Amino acid sequence: MTAVGPEEPGEPGRPVGPVASGCLDAGLLAPGRAGSAAEAATGDAAFLRALLDAEAALTRAQASLGLAPAAAADAVTAAAADAARFDVHALALRARAGGNPVIPLVADLGAAVGDEHSPYVHRGATSQDIMDTAMTLVSVRTLDLVLGDLARTERALARLAREHRDTVMPGRTLTQHAVPTTFGLKAAGWRSLVLDARDRVRVVRDGLPAQLGGAAGTAAAFAVYGASDTAALVAAYARELGLSAPLLPWHTLRTPVADLAGALAFTAGALGKTAVDVLTLSRTEIRELSEGTGGGSSAMPHKANPVRATLLAASARRAPQLAATLYGSMAAEDERPAGAWHAEWEPLRDLLRLVGGAARDAAELAEGLRVHADAMRAHLDLTHGLIVSERLAAELAPVLGRARAKDVLTRVARRATAEDRPLLELLAAELDLNEPELKDLDLVALTDPTRYAGSAGVLTDRALERR
Amino acid sequence: MTAVGPEEPGEPGRPVGPVASGCLDAGLLAPGRAGSAAEAATGDAAFLRALLDAEAALTRAQASLGLAPAAAADAVTAAAADAARFDVHALALRARAGGNPVIPLVADLGAAVGDEHSPYVHRGATSQDIMDTAMTLVSVRTLDLVLGDLARTERALARLAREHRDTVMPGRTLTQHAVPTTFGLKAAGWRSLVLDARDRVRVVRDGLPAQLGGAAGTAAAFAVYGASDTAALVAAYARELGLSAPLLPWHTLRTPVADLAGALAFTAGALGKTAVDVLTLSRTEIRELSEGTGGGSSAMPHKANPVRATLLAASARRAPQLAATLYGSMAAEDERPAGAWHAEWEPLRDLLRLVGGAARDAAELAEGLRVHADAMRAHLDLTHGLIVSERLAAELAPVLGRARAKDVLTRVARRATAEDRPLLELLAAELDLNEPELKDLDLVALTDPTRYAGSAGVLTDRALERR
Amino acid sequence: MTAVGPEEPGEPGRPVGPVASGCLDAGLLAPGRAGSAAEAATGDAAFLRALLDAEAALTRAQASLGLAPAAAADAVTAAAADAARFDVHALALRARAGGNPVIPLVADLGAAVGDEHSPYVHRGATSQDIMDTAMTLVSVRTLDLVLGDLARTERALARLAREHRDTVMPGRTLTQHAVPTTFGLKAAGWRSLVLDARDRVRVVRDGLPAQLGGAAGTAAAFAVYGASDTAALVAAYARELGLSAPLLPWHTLRTPVADLAGALAFTAGALGKTAVDVLTLSRTEIRELSEGTGGGSSAMPHKANPVRATLLAASARRAPQLAATLYGSMAAEDERPAGAWHAEWEPLRDLLRLVGGAARDAAELAEGLRVHADAMRAHLDLTHGLIVSERLAAELAPVLGRARAKDVLTRVARRATAEDRPLLELLAAELDLNEPELKDLDLVALTDPTRYAGSAGVLTDRALERR
Amino acid sequence: MTAVGPEEPGEPGRPVGPVASGCLDAGLLAPGRAGSAAEAATGDAAFLRALLDAEAALTRAQASLGLAPAAAADAVTAAAADAARFDVHALALRARAGGNPVIPLVADLGAAVGDEHSPYVHRGATSQDIMDTAMTLVSVRTLDLVLGDLARTERALARLAREHRDTVMPGRTLTQHAVPTTFGLKAAGWRSLVLDARDRVRVVRDGLPAQLGGAAGTAAAFAVYGASDTAALVAAYARELGLSAPLLPWHTLRTPVADLAGALAFTAGALGKTAVDVLTLSRTEIRELSEGTGGGSSAMPHKANPVRATLLAASARRAPQLAATLYGSMAAEDERPAGAWHAEWEPLRDLLRLVGGAARDAAELAEGLRVHADAMRAHLDLTHGLIVSERLAAELAPVLGRARAKDVLTRVARRATAEDRPLLELLAAELDLNEPELKDLDLVALTDPTRYAGSAGVLTDRALERR
Repeated sequence: MTAVGPEEPGEPGRPVGPVASGCLDAGLLAPGRAGSAAEAATGDAAFLRALLDAEAALTRAQASLGLAPAAAADAVTAAAADAARFDVHALALRARAGGNPVIPLVADLGAAVGDEHSPYVHRGATSQDIMDTAMTLVSVRTLDLVLGDLARTERALARLAREHRDTVMPGRTLTQHAVPTTFGLKAAGWRSLVLDARDRVRVVRDGLPAQLGGAAGTAAAFAVYGASDTAALVAAYARELGLSAPLLPWHTLRTPVADLAGALAFTAGALGKTAVDVLTLSRTEIRELSEGTGGGSSAMPHKANPVRATLLAASARRAPQLAATLYGSMAAEDERPAGAWHAEWEPLRDLLRLVGGAARDAAELAEGLRVHADAMRAHLDLTHGLIVSERLAAELAPVLGRARAKDVLTRVARRATAEDRPLLELLAAELDLNEPELKDLDLVALTDPTRYAGSAGVLTDRALERR
Repeated sequence: MTAVGPEEPGEPGRPVGPVASGCLDAGLLAPGRAGSAAEAATGDAAFLRALLDAEAALTRAQASLGLAPAAAADAVTAAAADAARFDVHALALRARAGGNPVIPLVADLGAAVGDEHSPYVHRGATSQDIMDTAMTLVSVRTLDLVLGDLARTERALARLAREHRDTVMPGRTLTQHAVPTTFGLKAAGWRSLVLDARDRVRVVRDGLPAQLGGAAGTAAAFAVYGASDTAALVAAYARELGLSAPLLPWHTLRTPVADLAGALAFTAGALGKTAVDVLTLSRTEIRELSEGTGGGSSAMPHKANPVRATLLAASARRAPQLAATLYGSMAAEDERPAGAWHAEWEPLRDLLRLVGGAARDAAELAEGLRVHADAMRAHLDLTHGLIVSERLAAELAPVLGRARAKDVLTRVARRATAEDRPLLELLAAELDLNEPELKDLDLVALTDPTRYAGSAGVLTDRALERR
Repeated sequence: MTAVGPEEPGEPGRPVGPVASGCLDAGLLAPGRAGSAAEAATGDAAFLRALLDAEAALTRAQASLGLAPAAAADAVTAAAADAARFDVHALALRARAGGNPVIPLVADLGAAVGDEHSPYVHRGATSQDIMDTAMTLVSVRTLDLVLGDLARTERALARLAREHRDTVMPGRTLTQHAVPTTFGLKAAGWRSLVLDARDRVRVVRDGLPAQLGGAAGTAAAFAVYGASDTAALVAAYARELGLSAPLLPWHTLRTPVADLAGALAFTAGALGKTAVDVLTLSRTEIRELSEGTGGGSSAMPHKANPVRATLLAASARRAPQLAATLYGSMAAEDERPAGAWHAEWEPLRDLLRLVGGAARDAAELAEGLRVHADAMRAHLDLTHGLIVSERLAAELAPVLGRARAKDVLTRVARRATAEDRPLLELLAAELDLNEPELKDLDLVALTDPTRYAGSAGVLTDRALERR
Repeated sequence: MTAVGPEEPGEPGRPVGPVASGCLDAGLLAPGRAGSAAEAATGDAAFLRALLDAEAALTRAQASLGLAPAAAADAVTAAAADAARFDVHALALRARAGGNPVIPLVADLGAAVGDEHSPYVHRGATSQDIMDTAMTLVSVRTLDLVLGDLARTERALARLAREHRDTVMPGRTLTQHAVPTTFGLKAAGWRSLVLDARDRVRVVRDGLPAQLGGAAGTAAAFAVYGASDTAALVAAYARELGLSAPLLPWHTLRTPVADLAGALAFTAGALGKTAVDVLTLSRTEIRELSEGTGGGSSAMPHKANPVRATLLAASARRAPQLAATLYGSMAAEDERPAGAWHAEWEPLRDLLRLVGGAARDAAELAEGLRVHADAMRAHLDLTHGLIVSERLAAELAPVLGRARAKDVLTRVARRATAEDRPLLELLAAELDLNEPELKDLDLVALTDPTRYAGSAGVLTDRALERR
C-alpha cells in the first residue's frame, strides 16, 4: 500500500489496510469518550452481551414457570455467557437480510446449544423483544457509570462552592461586567445542574422496562407454548434481568427511549453549562480559572488548553440533535415501524457514550479545576468601579433625589471610563460630603465591589444543603 | 396595489398592503393551532399580559414585605391590568436597542403609574427576571389547556379501547401483516402514551418556578432597597404568581426550560403515534379507521382526508427540533448568555402552541374516530390464513415433529399465496386428520385469526386500570 | 381585567384582553427581526398576497393560452390585487377543515369575482400548487432582501479588512493565545463567509420554481379544460410570476425546499461566525471590538451590550434545527404527504425571517463596528512574548540545536510566566549573544509579535480580490 | 463470564468479554451500512490512513519547493504508507490529553522516520490542518462511492420509468386516492431526486479543499521554515492530495463542512422519498410494489419485509439532525473554536457512512424492485370510479351546467360508495344519454381511470431526457 498521490485523489474502494482491520471505531474521532468505561459499555461487544443476556433470561424465565426444561435454561445460559464464540462482524453482515442482528444471533445461539435445547431459544419472542431489552440493559449499565461520575462531579463542585463561598468575582451578562457575584455561587449553580441531571437520570434508569410481547405485542405465541399467564412470564423475564416489568409491550410505545433521550440531552446540557463558563473564564485575558491539566500543543509550548471543557462543550452541541432523532421516532406506526425503530439504535448508543464520556470529563474537570481568586478580585476593578453603579444609583437616589443622582452618576461614569480614573475618586470630588444629607455616606464602602455580592453567600449555603 | 407581473418578480420591500397591517401571524400557516385556546395563550398579547403580571407581582410582593408602599402596588397592579394601553408593536421595535422587550415596557409602565410610583416599578429586578417569569406564566397557562385536552383524548381512547377490546385486526410489522391483534389493545396503547405525556407535563407544570435574582442573580439590589431576606421576597413574588419559588435564580441554570422542552417534545411524539396509525389505517386500501369529519377537497368531492391526523403528524415532525434548540441553550455562559437565552423565546412559544394545537386535534380525532371492525375482520384473511402461521408452527411441531411441521407449513404457505386458496383448505388436504396424533387437531380453530389475539384482551384491561 | 393573583395561578382560557386582539405576533419575542423588511415580507399578509398572486397568475396564464377569457383574467387579477378584502384570520380558522388555507381562499376569491368569472379561479389546480408557489414567491422576495443586506455587510467588512490589513492581534485557539494574526485577516474571513452565503442564496433564489401540477401532479385537469400542452401552461404561469418553470411538478420532490433550508442555515451560520467573534472580542476584559451602538441596561448605565452580535448568535443557534425539519420533510410519501408537507410551512417562514433579520443585524453590526487596535496590540504582550514561541522554536533550533533550543525555551517560558517578565529579557540573559553562531540573532525582531503575522496581509489581499 | 442475574442488574464496569475486544463498532447496530464500502472508507482505519496521507503530502509538498530534503519526503511517505505500524486504539487514548489524535500521531510518525527526518514531519502545521484535510480526504473517497451507487440507482429507476411509462396507478394525497397517475411518473420523480442529489454531491466533492494554515491560519511558521510563497506551498500540498487549494485557511470558515452537511442531508432525504413510497406501496393491503429480496422473519415464514426501504427510511430520519449539528458548528469563535470543531468529527463521519450505506441500499432496492401493475390497475377501481370525479366535474359542467353537474355528481358519488356500485353504471342510469347535449358523451371513456393520467407520460419522457 502506498500513499495517495496526486493522480489518484479519491480512488474509491481502495482497501484500507491491515490497521485494526474490521474495526470501525476505536475512539480515534472521539477523545471525549476514548477509553472510558461508558465507551466499553456501549460498544458492539457490550450490545452482543446484552442481546445474549436477554435471550438467556427469556429461557430461564420460561423454565422458572415450567415452560422449558431447566436443562435448556442452563444450556442457553452457558452458551450465552460465552460471548466470544459469536462473531460480531459476521452477525452485522447477516443482519442486513432481515434488518436486525437478532435473527442471525438466534440461529447461532440455537446451533450453540444443540438440537435438544434449540427449540427453547427465543421461544415465542420477536427480534424486537431482544433488541429493545438489550438497549435497556446497555442503558442501565451505562447510566450507572454516568451516575457514578456525576456523583464525583457534584462532590468536587460542592467543595469548590464551599471554599469559594466569599470569593467575589465579576458577574457577567451579555459578555459585559454587570454586578459582582461569587465563584461560590457559580460553582453551586453548576452543582445544582449536576444534581438536576442526576435526579432525571436516576428516575429514568430505575424505571427502564424489559420488553417482551412477541410478534405483535399480544404475547400470543407464549400462550401457545403453554404460558397461562403471560404477565407472569414478562415479570419473570424482567426479574432475571433486574429490569422493571412494563404495563404493556412498548414496541411502538416508545416512552422509555424518549425518556432516555430527554435525560441524556439534559445531562449533556447541564455539564455544558460548566464547560462554557470554564472556557470563558480560562481565556488568556481572563484566566480566573484553569484546568488542572491543560492540554498542550506541540508547536506552542506555552499553551495550556482547556481540553476537558472543550470536549464537554462539544458533547453539549451534539446531544440535543441526537435526542431529537429519538423523540422523532415516537411517531412509530403499526406494531413495529419500518424505519423509526431502526433509527433509534445508533443515536441512542451515541447519546449514551457521549454523555458517559462527558460525565467522566466533568468529574476530571471539577476535581482538577484551579481557581485564581486574585484574578477575580483584580477584574472587579476593570470598570473603574462601574460594576457597582447599580448600587450607587439605588443608594444615592434617596439622598440626592433621583434626578440629581442620575445626573451625577452619568457624569462620573463617563469620566471614569474616559479618564481611566476610579469612580470613588471622581465621586468624592463631585459631591460635597460635608452637605448634611451626605455626611453619612460611606463612599469607600459603597464603591467596594467585594461588599456588593448581595445574597450570593446565603444562596450558596442554601444550594449546598441540597443532597 | 397591483398584482405582481412578470417584469417584477421579487420586488423586495414592496408594501404588503392593508390586510392585517402590522400583524405578522393570524394562524394562516398553522391550521393545527389556528383559533385554539393555546394559540391565544401564547400570542404576543398573552406574553405582554404575562410580562405585566410579573411586574405587578413584583411590586405587590415588595409591598407585602414593607419594601414599597401599598399605593404603589395598587397603582402598578392597576396599570398592568390595563394591557390595552401598551403598544405591542412599538415595544417590539424598541426592544431592538437592548435586545429584549422588558426595557421599553418598564419605561412605559413607569410612565403609566406616574412619578410617584414609578420608582417601585421593576425595582431591583433585571429584564430576565421578568422575561423568564412571563415565559413560565405563559407555559403554565398553556400547559393547563394541554392537560385539559389530553384528558379529553384519554377518555375518548379509553372508551374506544373498552368498546373494541375484542375487535380483532391484523397486527402489522414493517408494513406487513404479522399476527392478529385487537383494536382495543391499539387504542389502549395510544392512551397509555397520552397518560405518559400527561404525567410528564403535569410534573413539569407543577414545578415551574418564578425567576427573581436581579442583575447577576445575587439579588443584591433588593437588599439595597431594604430587603433583609431576599428569599422571603422571592417567595412572596412566586406566591403572587401562583408559581414555585426556585432554590436559586436560574438565569443560566435552565432546568425549567429544558424540562419544558422534554415534556412538550414527548407529548408531540406521543400524539404523533396515534396520528401515524390513523393515517395508515385510513388509507383508501385499508380504511379500518376514518376520522369523524374528514377534510374535503374542492376538486375531488369523494375525498375524506384524515386532516386531524395529518396536522398531528406534522407537529410530531417539528417538535423534536424545537426541543433540541432549547436543550442546546442549556450551555449558557456567564450570568446571562449572549444568544443562548434569546434563542429560547420563539422556540419555546412555538413548542407550546404546537403542542397546544396538537392536543386539541388529538381530542377531536379521538372523540370522532370511526372504527370499521368489518374491514379489520376482512383483512385478517388477506394472507389466506398465513397471519396465523406462527401459531401453526408452534402447534404442529410437537405433533408432526419440527422438521415435518416446517416442511408442511412452508409448502402450504407457498401454495396459499400462489393459488390464492385458504390455508385451512390446503392444510386439511395435506394432512391425514385420521392419523391418531392428528385427530385432536382442530384445524378450524387453529387457523381462525380471531382466536389468535393472545393476551390482547387482558393487556387492554390492565392498561385501562391505569388512571 | 385584573392581574393574576395567587389564587388563580394558571387560569386557562382567560381572555387575553384587547391588546392587539387577534394578532399573535407583532415581533415581541423577536427583536432580531422586529420591524425588518424581511419580517413584513414573511408575515401572514405577505403570504396572503403571494397566494393571491399565484391564483391571479394562473388565470392570466390560462387566458394567455386561450384557456380562459381575458375578462376573467382581468377580474381575478383585480380581485387578487385587493388583498384587504380577504380576512386572514377567518381564512386561518376555515383552513382547519381541509388542512390548508387555499381551500377557503379559493371560495372567497370566486365570490369576489362573481359567478361569471369564478369558474376560471383555481381552474385545474390543487391547493398545493398555490401554497408551494406562494412559498416560493415569499422566499424570492425575502431572499432579495437578504441579498441586499449581505451586500451591505460584505462592503463594510471589506472596508474593515482593508483598513486593518496590518493591525496585529492575538490569534486564539481553544480560548488561548496561539500566535499573532491580524484583524484584517479576520474581517476578510468573515467577508468570505458572507460571500459564500451570498453565492448559495443567489443560486437557490434564481432557480426557485413555480408549482403547477394539479391534484396528483399529472396536470390532468388542465387538459380537460383544454390545454393541449400543459408544459406551455406551466411555463406561462411561471413567467407571470417571474419564477422558473420546473421540469416536473415537485409536490413530493422537495428539492426547492431543501435547497432553501441549506442556503438559509448556511447563511445563519456564516453570520454566526462573525457574531461569536464579536461577542468574544467585546468582553469587558478584551474589548478589542465594540458595537457601534451598544445596547444599554436600565439598572447598569455603564453597560454597552453587544446586542446585534447577541441576536445574530441566537439566530445561528436556531436555524440548523429549522433546516433539519425541512430536510426531514423530503421523505414525503405518495403524491402529497400527510404531514411532511404541512410541517414545512412554519419552519420555512421562520428560517426566512430569522435569516432576514440576521442579515439586517449583520449589516448594522459590520457598518458600526469599532476596532480598538491599541487593545489588540497590548494583548500581544499578555503572554510575555510567548505568543511568538512557535517562531523562536523554529529559529533557534538550527542555531542552538533542537535539544538545546527546546531546553532553553522551556526554561524561559516557565520563568516568563512565573516571574512576570518579558521573554526577550530572559532570553537575552540566557543566551550568550557573543557566541559566534548567535551573533546574527536579532532577538528584538524575533520576539516582536507584530513581526510574526506570517502571510496574514497577503491572504487578506487575496481574499479581497474576490467579488 | 456468567449471565446477569436478578441480583446484579446493572453492574457497571464489568468487563465486556473477549469478543471483538477493543473494537467498539463492527456494524452490529447498523445493518444499513454494515459491510459497505462506505463503512470501510469512514472507519477509524480509513481516518488514520487519511491523516497519514495528509502528513506525507505535507512533507512532499515542502520537498517539492526545496523546503525539505527529498529523502525526508521519501521517508515520511514510506512510514505513512505503513499504517499498520500505528496503533489506532493507543492513539485514541493519547488524543485525550490535547483533544485530538494528530498530536500523538505526529510523535509516532516522527519516531517512525527517525531523528534525521523527524524535523520534517508536520513542519509548520497545526493539528487542525491535518484533521481537516483528513476529513476532506475521507469525504472525497466516500462521496465517490456514493456517486457510484447513485448512478446505479438512477439507471435502475430510469429503466423502471421507461418500462412503466403507461402503467396507471392511483395517485394518492393525504393517504387517499386522488386521481390516477402512472408508476412511470413516480419512478421518474424518484430519479429526478437522485439526479438532484448527484449534482449537489458532485459540486461539493469537486470543490473540497485541503487545509493548511498553521497555528492560527497565517501560515507564519512556514515562512520561518523558508517558504517565500505560502500560497505555493498550499497549492503543492493540495495537488499532492488531489484536492482543491483554498482561498483562505478555513479553520473557522467552515464552508466545506456545511456544504457536506447540506449535500448529505439532501441525499438521505432524496433516497428517503423513494423509501417511504416503497414502504407504503408494499403494504399487505396494497402490494403494488415489492422488494426483490424481502427480509424474512423466523417466526412468520410468510413475511417478506421491505428491509431495504426500511433502512433507507431510517437513514432519512437521522441525517437532518446530524447535518444540523454541523451547520451549528459554523459559529466557530476565534482561530480555532473550543468545541464547535470537535463536535464536527463524529457527526460528519456518521453522515458520510449513513448516506454511503443508504446509497447502496437504494441501488439494491431500485435494481430489485418488483412492480405489480395488475394490483395498480385493480386499485383504480377501489373508489368505484370516484378517482375520476375531478374529470367528470370538469366535463359535465359545460354540458349540464355547473349546478346540475355538481348535483348529479354529488348524488352518484354518495350512492357509489353506499351501494358499492360503479360510478359508470349509476351515471348512465342518472343521465338520459339521448338528450341532445349528452349524446356525444362517452361515459365509458370518461370514467375509465386509465384514460385520465393526464400528462404523466409526457412528463416522464421529459424527465428521462435529463442526464
